[in-house]
Amino acid sequence: MHTITDTSNMDRELLISRVINAPVEKVYRAWTEPELLMQWFTPAPWKTVKAELDLRPGGANLIVMRGPDGQEFPNRGVYLEVIKNQKLVFTDAYVKAWEPSAKPFMTVVLTFEDVGGKTKYNARVYHWTEADRETHEKMGFREGWGKATDQLEALVAKI
Amino acid sequence: MHTITDTSNMDRELLISRVINAPVEKVYRAWTEPELLMQWFTPAPWKTVKAELDLRPGGANLIVMRGPDGQEFPNRGVYLEVIKNQKLVFTDAYVKAWEPSAKPFMTVVLTFEDVGGKTKYNARVYHWTEADRETHEKMGFREGWGKATDQLEALVAKI
Repeated sequence: MHTITDTSNMDRELLISRVINAPVEKVYRAWTEPELLMQWFTPAPWKTVKAELDLRPGGANLIVMRGPDGQEFPNRGVYLEVIKNQKLVFTDAYVKAWEPSAKPFMTVVLTFEDVGGKTKYNARVYHWTEADRETHEKMGFREGWGKATDQLEALVAKI
Repeated sequence: MHTITDTSNMDRELLISRVINAPVEKVYRAWTEPELLMQWFTPAPWKTVKAELDLRPGGANLIVMRGPDGQEFPNRGVYLEVIKNQKLVFTDAYVKAWEPSAKPFMTVVLTFEDVGGKTKYNARVYHWTEADRETHEKMGFREGWGKATDQLEALVAKI
């Protein structure tokens, strides 16, 4: 048997927090309908060329991104919690239920909260180590997720 | 964003497989009722002195084991899948939903299958790395889980 100890996660977390000028239903749709997700998910000039979303706890997702030079990057994960229009949790620790991935890197907890017809949108990204959080920051988390979230806002304004 | 690739998990898995001479309902109870679990879970002379089991996807569990010298070892985890009398999945990758643990070590997939009133019992233990699977073996997985499973069989014979 294996023993673990508690640690604070404050130093392992990244957060995008915004009020989006659209109802929660639309923001949730943008995260859960493949044809919508593909339109905003990847910061240009990158593209999302495939999105398979089996939207249930234990369901797998596959999102394939294509770089400017044509190289494709598949991202696999599993949903852990799905509450329509409220909360969506997924992780890359599994490639399907319950096959461990090569590297458990992050768990994403999205919350959608109605504030007078707008959406208080929080994307909390938890890492298993402080080093991975730092790596994610250096990979351009704030710019990348920031730009993607701009694209999300632009999309939900017109659906 | 982070890219992962598929790997085979055959070299990262440990398995206990038995036919237990008791119906699936009893074997499932032994894993899910704290007062029962405490009676078999820890190979003697170790004891299980606390078991808190929030039995739902995303629910946390805390199992405290006490060694022969009195030292206590808390084990925290989260249930990922709960199908009564059929399947139970939990991992130590989280200490609660969805706070990453200090070290994602294993995911346990238990299946309970009725075979003519007896139970085909499989405990599959998946690790994220081959090194962790080896560590788990060297920690005495086969003896420890084997002895615990003997205790489980003895318990379900009398409940």
